[in-house]
Amino acid sequence: MGSVNVSQSAAAAAARGPGRAPSDQVAVRRANLVRVLGEVRSAGPLSRATVARHTGLTRATVSSLVAELIERGLLRETDFQQDGSVGRPGRRLEIDGRAVAVLGLEVNSRYLAARSTDLADGTRQERRVVHDATREGAERTIRALAGIAAELLDEARAAGAHTAGIGVAVPGPVDAADGSVRAAPNLGWRDVPVARLLRDHLGLPAEVPVVVDNEANLAALAERGRPGSRAADLVYVTGEAGIGAGIVADGGLLRGAGGFSGELGHLQVDPAGERCACGRTGCLETKVGLTAAIRTAAPDLADGPAGAVALDPQELAAELLRRATEGDPRALGGLDEIGRWLGIGLAIPVNLLNPEVIVLGGYFATVAPYLLPAAMRELRERAVAGDPAVARVTGSALGFTAAVRGAAGVVVEEVFADPARLIPPAAGVAVPGLQG
Amino acid sequence: MGSVNVSQSAAAAAARGPGRAPSDQVAVRRANLVRVLGEVRSAGPLSRATVARHTGLTRATVSSLVAELIERGLLRETDFQQDGSVGRPGRRLEIDGRAVAVLGLEVNSRYLAARSTDLADGTRQERRVVHDATREGAERTIRALAGIAAELLDEARAAGAHTAGIGVAVPGPVDAADGSVRAAPNLGWRDVPVARLLRDHLGLPAEVPVVVDNEANLAALAERGRPGSRAADLVYVTGEAGIGAGIVADGGLLRGAGGFSGELGHLQVDPAGERCACGRTGCLETKVGLTAAIRTAAPDLADGPAGAVALDPQELAAELLRRATEGDPRALGGLDEIGRWLGIGLAIPVNLLNPEVIVLGGYFATVAPYLLPAAMRELRERAVAGDPAVARVTGSALGFTAAVRGAAGVVVEEVFADPARLIPPAAGVAVPGLQG
Repeated sequence: MGSVNVSQSAAAAAARGPGRAPSDQVAVRRANLVRVLGEVRSAGPLSRATVARHTGLTRATVSSLVAELIERGLLRETDFQQDGSVGRPGRRLEIDGRAVAVLGLEVNSRYLAARSTDLADGTRQERRVVHDATREGAERTIRALAGIAAELLDEARAAGAHTAGIGVAVPGPVDAADGSVRAAPNLGWRDVPVARLLRDHLGLPAEVPVVVDNEANLAALAERGRPGSRAADLVYVTGEAGIGAGIVADGGLLRGAGGFSGELGHLQVDPAGERCACGRTGCLETKVGLTAAIRTAAPDLADGPAGAVALDPQELAAELLRRATEGDPRALGGLDEIGRWLGIGLAIPVNLLNPEVIVLGGYFATVAPYLLPAAMRELRERAVAGDPAVARVTGSALGFTAAVRGAAGVVVEEVFADPARLIPPAAGVAVPGLQG
Repeated sequence: MGSVNVSQSAAAAAARGPGRAPSDQVAVRRANLVRVLGEVRSAGPLSRATVARHTGLTRATVSSLVAELIERGLLRETDFQQDGSVGRPGRRLEIDGRAVAVLGLEVNSRYLAARSTDLADGTRQERRVVHDATREGAERTIRALAGIAAELLDEARAAGAHTAGIGVAVPGPVDAADGSVRAAPNLGWRDVPVARLLRDHLGLPAEVPVVVDNEANLAALAERGRPGSRAADLVYVTGEAGIGAGIVADGGLLRGAGGFSGELGHLQVDPAGERCACGRTGCLETKVGLTAAIRTAAPDLADGPAGAVALDPQELAAELLRRATEGDPRALGGLDEIGRWLGIGLAIPVNLLNPEVIVLGGYFATVAPYLLPAAMRELRERAVAGDPAVARVTGSALGFTAAVRGAAGVVVEEVFADPARLIPPAAGVAVPGLQG
């Protein structure tokens, strides 16, 4: 009965209306900052009068809040000329992304990625470098990641932007309390304190938050936040060497009791199948992971000393697509077989969670047209409640960038959720360069 | 980012503090009624002064709200003598359940159940009658259910209680908009307007809500609401002829986009297995449903013209337990085998959802000691994130009453979520007897 909880929570705040104790005044102002900023974000550009009307706040209160948000570099006020009108233009409030920089980072088994954005999700800079995190190990990998981060932070600082925080996507379950990776089987990592290592290398002040989360969770948030895709119930499925799921239920991320949700890749789909890297038998990952796809659809690419896993997954996906598009029978037959197993796997979240949308990431997104016919056939046969229960399945429009976008996005949301936490640019916290 | 949404929602309400528009006054008073009632419910008995302090409301506001809640029969004020103190006793507010009656009903394939409670979840009356809903069909079944409901409503009225609403548990997905059952495969029902039929038979006034929901969802809510079991992430698994799951995630029921979540019983666990009643192959239900359990652990009970399904599931469960307790090798071996498959099935929600607790209902609860060793062995082997990710698995203490308790509980929560909706006893809406 989440609705009950929500209404009680809203009630608790609303209850402080008449007869509110003075100690609540700071909390109310903080909440009002969120309210005004959120209003401009969702409906802006808006005049002050419209903000007052939408929020139920007085004009005087709105003006005081707007002054603080402008000072913090979150809002700006610009002239606005109504179409066809003459005379003095009105003034409109809008989100001022330029003064704030947010950094998203990703540790993948084959590459490191970084992306800096402003508050309006405008990209400042992107980086993507091939990196073997398994061979390099945690220490050297985080040092390399910090090097890329420092470049992007320098660029943002040179452009006069204040760093609001850093989000990091990692391929494994994370301890949210301290931002450490508990286990990343595809990297061979265990208990790596990613947030602390990154802070140390960058010499970050304590005021700049570093948020570490599972790549599938962050990709799911990035997909949920895309314009036009605001599904309240969505499952994002990663498609690389490892297969995992990020689950959005009722609009929020479903993390589970210990943050271990979404282990879709190691659900058993074939008890008579082959052994998985995890030690179990017949896992979905052995059927539809990128390694299985190469073996099934383009076995010649798996040749060589280290096999296909030594290549960049994005390049492998592009090569699979090229072959399928050219009508290569091995590629077409292999992808159809992969699609069939993918449908068998997707039937599990469909029947258990009934999502509105399933978004396929990684190589699945690249070759989706060649996977989906077989996958949907399998899914329709297996959906217990019939066609109305079959989720819409779609390739991610964000491709291999979903996780790093989600990592930046999660910090953007933190700013909108509590703008008072953001240090105003005037306070001038300079982010130092790379240390140690 | 559910937390973001919640904080913005609370903020939206809090924002209406200074400079609040007059049109919000009614909403604020409604929210304050919820707040005061909730405070007494969770922390009571409490003095008016303590309620004022906990809610941040003024004494005068609290007194006005308390007067309304007493008038509506939801609160009462009693003398309270501090231990060891002398002199005039203080006055304390507490929930007054007696003036309100809530009715929970359940349609099972083998029986009908009813339970009336007061607001404090004190049972007034219980009924349970054997009824073959498959053979009788929807019309006659709902008529029989209405007959039982009318008896309990008469009793409540005779005791001076006002009926706050009726909850109905059914074994299949429900259209929440109109309270109709879309499909109940084990009953052979499709598109049955349960709420409307029940209203017509009982001649219920429009002000009395009738809430229809899936039995597994309602049982999950009943389990979540038990004292000492407030897990935010919980999966309830029904154990009768049909197997289904009710999923609580982050404290709220996970219904999915169309209300089709929880179809655990028809996930495939054995592609080489036998055909299920649903037409698919190797469903979990074919391995651990009550019919499979009888066939495996007590095949002689399945003899006779209609087989084991003609018996009451509660009696069958008791007979299984009796045989296992007496050391019957067929029963022990069979339940161990069922336990193994149950563990294989439970590994799916464990890996996908990472619940803190899995509660086993129906016959699973009765024979849990003979199922759990094999089930936990299987579950520990299959939990991808290892032991920290293995849910606590426990038999339901509510047994076969979980669904009907949940059905009553959901109406109780509606009263606490909006006490202003409840018609005060003074208005005297008499619930008429059985019609048609």
